[in-house]
Amino acid sequence: MPQPGFSGGWLDRADALRQQPERVAAMLADPASRLLRLTALEPELDGAGRLVWDGIATLAADAQPLLLGIRDGIAHFAAARTDDPAAFGRSPTLTALLGEMRHEEAAVYAVARSLIDWHRRHGFCANCGQANDMARAGWMRACSACGAEHYPRTDPVVIMLAERGDRVLLGRQPSWPPGRWSALAGFVEVGETIEEAVRRETMEEAGISVGAVRYIASQPWPFPSSLMIACIGKALDEAITIDANELEQARWFTRDEVSAALAGADDAAFIPAPPYAIAHTLMTAWIAGA
Amino acid sequence: MPQPGFSGGWLDRADALRQQPERVAAMLADPASRLLRLTALEPELDGAGRLVWDGIATLAADAQPLLLGIRDGIAHFAAARTDDPAAFGRSPTLTALLGEMRHEEAAVYAVARSLIDWHRRHGFCANCGQANDMARAGWMRACSACGAEHYPRTDPVVIMLAERGDRVLLGRQPSWPPGRWSALAGFVEVGETIEEAVRRETMEEAGISVGAVRYIASQPWPFPSSLMIACIGKALDEAITIDANELEQARWFTRDEVSAALAGADDAAFIPAPPYAIAHTLMTAWIAGA
Repeated sequence: MPQPGFSGGWLDRADALRQQPERVAAMLADPASRLLRLTALEPELDGAGRLVWDGIATLAADAQPLLLGIRDGIAHFAAARTDDPAAFGRSPTLTALLGEMRHEEAAVYAVARSLIDWHRRHGFCANCGQANDMARAGWMRACSACGAEHYPRTDPVVIMLAERGDRVLLGRQPSWPPGRWSALAGFVEVGETIEEAVRRETMEEAGISVGAVRYIASQPWPFPSSLMIACIGKALDEAITIDANELEQARWFTRDEVSAALAGADDAAFIPAPPYAIAHTLMTAWIAGA
Repeated sequence: MPQPGFSGGWLDRADALRQQPERVAAMLADPASRLLRLTALEPELDGAGRLVWDGIATLAADAQPLLLGIRDGIAHFAAARTDDPAAFGRSPTLTALLGEMRHEEAAVYAVARSLIDWHRRHGFCANCGQANDMARAGWMRACSACGAEHYPRTDPVVIMLAERGDRVLLGRQPSWPPGRWSALAGFVEVGETIEEAVRRETMEEAGISVGAVRYIASQPWPFPSSLMIACIGKALDEAITIDANELEQARWFTRDEVSAALAGADDAAFIPAPPYAIAHTLMTAWIAGA
């Protein structure tokens, strides 16, 4: 099975350093430290699919740097370059960049993107409403008014194939590109297991009952900050009833159809999610017999 | 493998109803609807380990009801009975109640506890600082000032056994009861996979490198609202270096020692986590050969 997209980053998170402000200050004063080149949440790539970094001296005076991690003794930071909210969306440019970005670079980018976006949307204390402050080198926000500590949010999401003999269930959301079909997915709710979420979401979205569920792989997904948990479940029935609020269509695809789609065949029945999406990893694993 | 604690609830979440205010209003007006008996976050049990419910008419005029779900056409709600923050802690009484509570009841209680506690700590919009309002029958908070939608938070946590031949690594936190040893655990961070989090946490807390990781089971943990993801990893070395900020001790335990502890033997080497904690499920699965 290929490694899921956004995994395998090359930075040591060095989480113990985050709680040592004097060490962080020294890293920010060290000219060898590096700053990820970003415009809002969009990176730049060199010709080889690698992220572009600048010297830490280029950090704007009013920017708040986040410590992404350390490599070979060199600290790597990120900070956003604009306050224009409209600039923080997911652009077609970014989709193209993700296609060109090397696997291990995407993992580093994912941390920067999710963290910056989280700070941008969490400037106030949910507990008391006062403005709060970045802390722990970007890995916390602290409220000086009520004392609450807020940590970056990661939302678990299940993404799954229901299988029935030689076929799997795929769906289409109205917002997807023409021809795209993919695995169903949904947020894990408060008070449920991964397996329960797989069964609930498959029933809600497609009306299919699922029995045994097996875990396949996981992936961080930085739009804005999910943990995608990929599973295969045994479908207990076949007749599909879609939830039109979630899906435009759902149907069963054969092993041959999924294989041809992953191979990018001209006459493939559908266009799969890109290789950096875990839906692609999941279908590849199913074809390989996972 | 036993079912993990807080799984297997008997309510249909009926999530489509949450977005139909008139249906929710009708359920709140229906005398057959039920309200979980709670004092702050503490439930009451009948003599058979079942949660106690009251008629919905007992809902306080200023209380905000959350829709837990439906069974046999009857809506089940929860709402907290006190605004005293000191009452919302995890008491010894609750620990005793969890020991007596039936498996399928604990799952229903977990939803109520996590949701109520989340609302209690999220009365203000993190995006703009204004007071926000409960929406979707308790499954969202909506900000009328900036339009932000906030959903209940679920934090993924990895909990893992590093195994080395016939032994597994367990640790002790200073706050634990005397004799308690258990699996290491830690939050999955932004931008990492489940497997990466298992390796990072085991290295940070005990200095042990982990290779292959296999998923075993998951559990919602309502203190306040985690998704516990239980794994077993192959340890690549044996010499332990603990992080004294996280652990008081860590050591390797043999299969016989873990078996005796799970069986509650008088001369067992340690006292395991209670059966409703997934650490117990995880050790049981390891003994069974998972």
